[in-house]
Amino acid sequence: MNVKKIHIFDTTLRDGEQVPGCKLNHKQKLKVARRLEQLGVDVIEAGFPISSPGDFTAVELIAREIKNPVICALSRAIEQDIKVAAESLKYANRPRIHTGIGTSYEHIHYKLNSTPEKIIARAVAAVKYAKRFVEDVEFYAEDAGRTENTYLAEVIQAVVKAGATVLNIPDTTGYCMPFEYGEKIAFLKSNVIGIDNCTLSTHCHNDLGLATANSIAGVEHGATQIECTVNGLGERAGNAALEEVVMVLKQRYKDQFYTDINTKILNSISRLVSDAMSMPVQPNKAIVGENAFAHSSGIHQDGVIKRRENYEIMNPHDVGVDQSRIVLTARSGRAALAYRCKDVGINLAKDELDILYPAFIKLADRKKEVVTSDLLPLIKSNLGVSA
Amino acid sequence: MNVKKIHIFDTTLRDGEQVPGCKLNHKQKLKVARRLEQLGVDVIEAGFPISSPGDFTAVELIAREIKNPVICALSRAIEQDIKVAAESLKYANRPRIHTGIGTSYEHIHYKLNSTPEKIIARAVAAVKYAKRFVEDVEFYAEDAGRTENTYLAEVIQAVVKAGATVLNIPDTTGYCMPFEYGEKIAFLKSNVIGIDNCTLSTHCHNDLGLATANSIAGVEHGATQIECTVNGLGERAGNAALEEVVMVLKQRYKDQFYTDINTKILNSISRLVSDAMSMPVQPNKAIVGENAFAHSSGIHQDGVIKRRENYEIMNPHDVGVDQSRIVLTARSGRAALAYRCKDVGINLAKDELDILYPAFIKLADRKKEVVTSDLLPLIKSNLGVSA
Repeated sequence: MNVKKIHIFDTTLRDGEQVPGCKLNHKQKLKVARRLEQLGVDVIEAGFPISSPGDFTAVELIAREIKNPVICALSRAIEQDIKVAAESLKYANRPRIHTGIGTSYEHIHYKLNSTPEKIIARAVAAVKYAKRFVEDVEFYAEDAGRTENTYLAEVIQAVVKAGATVLNIPDTTGYCMPFEYGEKIAFLKSNVIGIDNCTLSTHCHNDLGLATANSIAGVEHGATQIECTVNGLGERAGNAALEEVVMVLKQRYKDQFYTDINTKILNSISRLVSDAMSMPVQPNKAIVGENAFAHSSGIHQDGVIKRRENYEIMNPHDVGVDQSRIVLTARSGRAALAYRCKDVGINLAKDELDILYPAFIKLADRKKEVVTSDLLPLIKSNLGVSA
Repeated sequence: MNVKKIHIFDTTLRDGEQVPGCKLNHKQKLKVARRLEQLGVDVIEAGFPISSPGDFTAVELIAREIKNPVICALSRAIEQDIKVAAESLKYANRPRIHTGIGTSYEHIHYKLNSTPEKIIARAVAAVKYAKRFVEDVEFYAEDAGRTENTYLAEVIQAVVKAGATVLNIPDTTGYCMPFEYGEKIAFLKSNVIGIDNCTLSTHCHNDLGLATANSIAGVEHGATQIECTVNGLGERAGNAALEEVVMVLKQRYKDQFYTDINTKILNSISRLVSDAMSMPVQPNKAIVGENAFAHSSGIHQDGVIKRRENYEIMNPHDVGVDQSRIVLTARSGRAALAYRCKDVGINLAKDELDILYPAFIKLADRKKEVVTSDLLPLIKSNLGVSA
């Protein structure tokens, strides 16, 4: 069976960096871009050059220094935006201009004060103008998630004819259900002539917690690029998390799709981005959260100690985590206590465990977590074993 | 059209509380339970009484005090567990015992060292034993996500005959894709006699970032109860987030489903649980994150100022957030600057904005965020307006 490459388009430095509090200086941006290159992303969206001189400089610097991935710069469907984006990409090895315009009823009428016909004309003009500077032009149909499919297909058909190489179908407002988003991609695949010669891309926001599911639904229905960010950063509730979409494809679709991501770097790049942007990752964040491979209840711990796969569908090493953690709390069982005592060099016999366990639970009821330094005193005072 | 009630089963105090660092004392548990009752959840899973004397006391206290929701206690398929769960529920107005056993190949062979036939016998015995104490018995088929559907239907058929009133189909390891989980629920609906007289429940973990999508897929295919937690807490990457599943149903399925949740409390209960458990909620968390209704890029801000719905698919008031935030950064546009200046009492004319905007961008390129206290000095030094 033909296993299809899915391109990973990282927009941590654009959609992520525009978030309140996440702005980076250009040295920080370059550092993150270097790590993204090591991670193996196919495209780095480096910024929105017209937005500020600082961001122009950052994009230019990344375009000079980072040579393997495509370097992409954002613009609106406005000549000056596109021209500045092109200038910022002057030194890029593989430049891409990303331009587009709102296509939903809401955006056409209430944001752009325009008509569907005029929007198509502006979209086509923007793509043609961008093609004067670069061969690789990506078009985004902003708020495609709420755009009626027939009209969306007309817009996309027009920009394909105008020379767009990549077609981005953003669920800008995080509105779609996975089945709807999948249907949208399938509709475009069936109704736009020449679409198979272009890269069709997802860009899903997480307002309802569905960005990962929507991105995967897009890929199932024909998209071959996913736009995403490290830690799921981005406007409002953020974008699809790179680490989640990559691991879904690796763990569940390996007969159909692959990416070029070196997953062992996922954990360290998560920390790099979190530190640089001062954006905490919650402990229960999928893949990269502190507790993603931690086991605390007795039932789970007993299962994991017997065989890791009883409660883990990924190997923590694959995402750069040293090992699963067995945390001792008042919900822990005998197996976990014995396991952690063994870790500090004490092999408990069954009768010793019978004595120690109730004492452990008594202590655990008073504390959030029983840590390694609690164990030896606990053993000593209950079993008299010398610490 | 008949709009179907979806029951919200909150397990913040059981699956959430068993997480490393999240243990609460019984006073804290009671405080959260009181707020969950105000929120309007149908079921509170209050704890795992056999796990520790402290947790037994907490469940008993909640059962005494909280009278509207069903109070549920967890147990393994072990008589002593079930007996202790029943004791803890002695004073409950509407008690439910939740019992179950692993049904996946992995759990049967590598955790329980058993056979498929013996597991069914243990499941049936547990349900029958629990029925001696309470009428309302919920059965969980642990790791149902990885359990082969035909065998799962056999297990569920057996426990329905034994008197189970609620059938919980947990994706314990966060393994399923939404289409798979939906198919699983549909398969059970079609193949288990008498299932329509029971409540069919989802319980999805978030290891691949799909817990919300899977829960909704379950409801689309016939489940009428969702198990979830505030802030998506729970083992490893956590459970389906209550706030996400509730808002998906409210925003996108209102013709088909409703819940009894008072969504205006979502934000405050998120903070209560986060504070009590010392578990941070990341700013880009859907619905309850600090940035969930914050707009920072110029394109988005301009759209939101024109009409909130251009970039928001929910009203922040509906989830207890005062208002959308327009944050000033180097990615902000002229519309946002004018809007925020108006907020501090300065109405800028077009020519004033022309002068002020480049100065603002210069400042914003040096700072992460331009705050209210930066605005008046900026206006004064560039426009000479007296602050």
